[in-house]
Amino acid sequence: MNGAHALLRTLVANGVDTCFTNPGTSEMHFVAALDDVPEMRAVLTLFEGVATGAADGYGRMAGRPAATLLHLGPGLGNGLANLHNARRARTPIVNIIGDHAVAHQPLDAPLQSDIESVARNVSQWIRSSNAPADVARDALDAIAAARAGGVATLILPADASWSEGAQTVPAGSIAVRTAPVPAEALDLAAKALQSGEPAALLLGGVLDEATLVAAARVAAATGAKVLCETFPARLERGAGLPAVERLGYLAEFAVAQMDGLRHLVLVGARAPVSFFAYPGKPSELVPDGCDVIDVGPGRIAALAKSVHADAEPARASAARPDRPTGALTAQSLAAAIGALLPEGAIVSDEANTAGLFVAGATAGAPPHDWLTLTGGAIGQGMPVATGAAVACPDRKVLSLEADGSAMYTLQSLWTQAREGLDVTTIIFNNRSYAILNLELSRVGARTDGHAAELFDLSRPPLDFVALARGMGVDAERAETADDVVRALERCLAEPGPHLIDAILPPGL
Amino acid sequence: MNGAHALLRTLVANGVDTCFTNPGTSEMHFVAALDDVPEMRAVLTLFEGVATGAADGYGRMAGRPAATLLHLGPGLGNGLANLHNARRARTPIVNIIGDHAVAHQPLDAPLQSDIESVARNVSQWIRSSNAPADVARDALDAIAAARAGGVATLILPADASWSEGAQTVPAGSIAVRTAPVPAEALDLAAKALQSGEPAALLLGGVLDEATLVAAARVAAATGAKVLCETFPARLERGAGLPAVERLGYLAEFAVAQMDGLRHLVLVGARAPVSFFAYPGKPSELVPDGCDVIDVGPGRIAALAKSVHADAEPARASAARPDRPTGALTAQSLAAAIGALLPEGAIVSDEANTAGLFVAGATAGAPPHDWLTLTGGAIGQGMPVATGAAVACPDRKVLSLEADGSAMYTLQSLWTQAREGLDVTTIIFNNRSYAILNLELSRVGARTDGHAAELFDLSRPPLDFVALARGMGVDAERAETADDVVRALERCLAEPGPHLIDAILPPGL
Repeated sequence: MNGAHALLRTLVANGVDTCFTNPGTSEMHFVAALDDVPEMRAVLTLFEGVATGAADGYGRMAGRPAATLLHLGPGLGNGLANLHNARRARTPIVNIIGDHAVAHQPLDAPLQSDIESVARNVSQWIRSSNAPADVARDALDAIAAARAGGVATLILPADASWSEGAQTVPAGSIAVRTAPVPAEALDLAAKALQSGEPAALLLGGVLDEATLVAAARVAAATGAKVLCETFPARLERGAGLPAVERLGYLAEFAVAQMDGLRHLVLVGARAPVSFFAYPGKPSELVPDGCDVIDVGPGRIAALAKSVHADAEPARASAARPDRPTGALTAQSLAAAIGALLPEGAIVSDEANTAGLFVAGATAGAPPHDWLTLTGGAIGQGMPVATGAAVACPDRKVLSLEADGSAMYTLQSLWTQAREGLDVTTIIFNNRSYAILNLELSRVGARTDGHAAELFDLSRPPLDFVALARGMGVDAERAETADDVVRALERCLAEPGPHLIDAILPPGL
Repeated sequence: MNGAHALLRTLVANGVDTCFTNPGTSEMHFVAALDDVPEMRAVLTLFEGVATGAADGYGRMAGRPAATLLHLGPGLGNGLANLHNARRARTPIVNIIGDHAVAHQPLDAPLQSDIESVARNVSQWIRSSNAPADVARDALDAIAAARAGGVATLILPADASWSEGAQTVPAGSIAVRTAPVPAEALDLAAKALQSGEPAALLLGGVLDEATLVAAARVAAATGAKVLCETFPARLERGAGLPAVERLGYLAEFAVAQMDGLRHLVLVGARAPVSFFAYPGKPSELVPDGCDVIDVGPGRIAALAKSVHADAEPARASAARPDRPTGALTAQSLAAAIGALLPEGAIVSDEANTAGLFVAGATAGAPPHDWLTLTGGAIGQGMPVATGAAVACPDRKVLSLEADGSAMYTLQSLWTQAREGLDVTTIIFNNRSYAILNLELSRVGARTDGHAAELFDLSRPPLDFVALARGMGVDAERAETADDVVRALERCLAEPGPHLIDAILPPGL
């Protein structure tokens, strides 16, 4: 058995049965081996940033890793921004990078580069599998490392892939290391929450119903506030689920949300800092005099138990906005989504500035999942929607995309068409990198000049209907709230990928 | 003066007056400072891979560096593949990456990453400019390093940009280090070429008329053969210029070209190795018994002098194919380009497999420049064409693009439209990653399976006319040779960007 076969068989035997890829010559034996391992679904993307973002979306929804298959250092580079986002989401991914044959590497052929030093940035585990006899064991270690919560990068030289001498290892031999429960931190947290002083939980990562219910019970039992990260990897929300307040993106909002706190208990989140530094403003957002206690991810049930939190938590009521009519604005677009969001939908949210009102408008919609831009590197939403749709073929996926961000990884649409994925993309088209108009004044730079021309996407305007059709995706343009309602109803009723180019007031 | 102003003034005072960018919050002060330094032309791109590739194309044509301005580690990641290509081309680029403020970096904010370790891969020089007082001197050093031939990466923390205390340094204070002429290697090379034994020159880098004439004179004086790298950064060619034989991409062709050589003299090129390793085949292509003498880049005139090469060299005759008619094939498409290529055109060639016949069909066309895929990382051709058009506004640019490669950095079209660049793109649309069909058998993998489905771009077909129009670029589809001739004549006659979607037989 050659290394490529051993790798594929090890992956599928251990629950990794989807691979997002754009392969090249050094990956040909992996590609050829797919014929003998039909359990592996290989999904072709037109750009590696789509592959890595799709693996992120898949991992967030499936709760287990997908693989990528990237071509050498440049393929990794193209996928790097979305691996950065995945690292921030702690999404399990087995990130496979083909390399030159071991003997070829010192020759500095044109595509040679230092893959490891680039991959280290985004990987919590990294290894080159240089001999076919090692491939299966290395793959198992990679899967275990990914399952522990993060990107595990396995570099596969072409000759390790094509050479005989590999074998599989028994399934079920994976030991996922989980850190021990930090008893002392749990005690400290429980005491802080029960102290009667102002306290809050800050949740991060995948926030499913069980986590939210446990957190809400802690709140009911102790009076603590429940917050979650600005950009959680996944948030279950909607009618019947406990609502959780997301920390604001703008530092001044986050500061207001934490004002007066004496205790902040982190559960899978990090102590909040501002996204960017601003002249003369603090970057650390935890209020003075507030202690921070980190109990680690996955500890909310233990925490609920230690504070005897067994009361029934408050849950969000069902409530939808009316279908909007009239002008298309950020508010009416949000209302249309709130009015129509189907039960069980998965929302990939990269609507950015123009999407400000969507969270509020959907808070009482039927239960759904919300996926966010975890690492701040734009171009993540459409790939994440693609991967989520592969992971959950029976659910509707709604991809909310800012126009500027959409143009980073628009090739996602082609993969959605090729795979027949049930994704409806709404472009929040304000012909602007609107967030930068805001940031220009926030950093104290002069705003009376021509700088904003570099944030202007109106010359020429982007026609997303043409762009989507060019990649085989059904698309229409919406210029009024009525247009959006009608288009969204149609798209949600017809399986397969669609795009709505929602024309908002400029520069919003 | 703040650091951003000092940086901009230092750049423009030293001949760096074009910046390809997609900025973010950490670059806002640089953007704001552009108002006070109108000599700097800032060119907005929709994706950093376009910015870095455009800087490459600009540098190859202008012979001096452009700047980039990228947003943190993810922006660098998005631009990494084309910086890899630029490194292989030894193109001068001042690669500026905005970073978080120095005090913000240890807080591990969402966009924090290790920029230096990623940049090291593609940079021959790298420095963080952490204090405003250092920015101008660091910028000068970066320009000097870039001019010596390569990517110089300057990391600019936001607070170095916004803080006062910077000053400019006098213009003209740049010392570009060039290596001393290696007298011994030159002597060895001259003796080898004059030995009467089979010998060849292998040229690399920017091959302008002076270089080619000197090399052809050496050939005439010594009987040596003149070869150039498979992918030179820039090659002047056409009627009236000395022709030079490019080393074949396929190793077996390159081996045949060097068969029997006893001496190989490298002038700005590296000893040839195969692009990829293949099972059981050698990666090093220099024949056994052939010595390799490296005289370094820029040494061809010295070499010509030392072998007393003053004969008039052979030059290519003027010859064009007839305008083709009938079916559109790789041959007839090449003939159309050969028949119509205007004098002084710049050709950015990423046509890959389907472009096989274009070099032959244009060998006797009026003089023109040829830019190639220097590092093998696809997605380079359209950005390079964009940057070349910015550098040379009075010349026609022809961008020859394979369909698969085009989809990597298609956002280039929008920048071409925004800037009104005179670029005509021809998509060699064979609905396939055709090179991989070839490579699958060359690596000895099974070819009787379904692997080729992963190289198939026909489901759904890409409509490049719709895609181009979606970004504001005039476009038409060509299905016959007559269509291509008519379309290309029209596009070359009308200034501004155009695209021709040339439909070739599938999988060619």
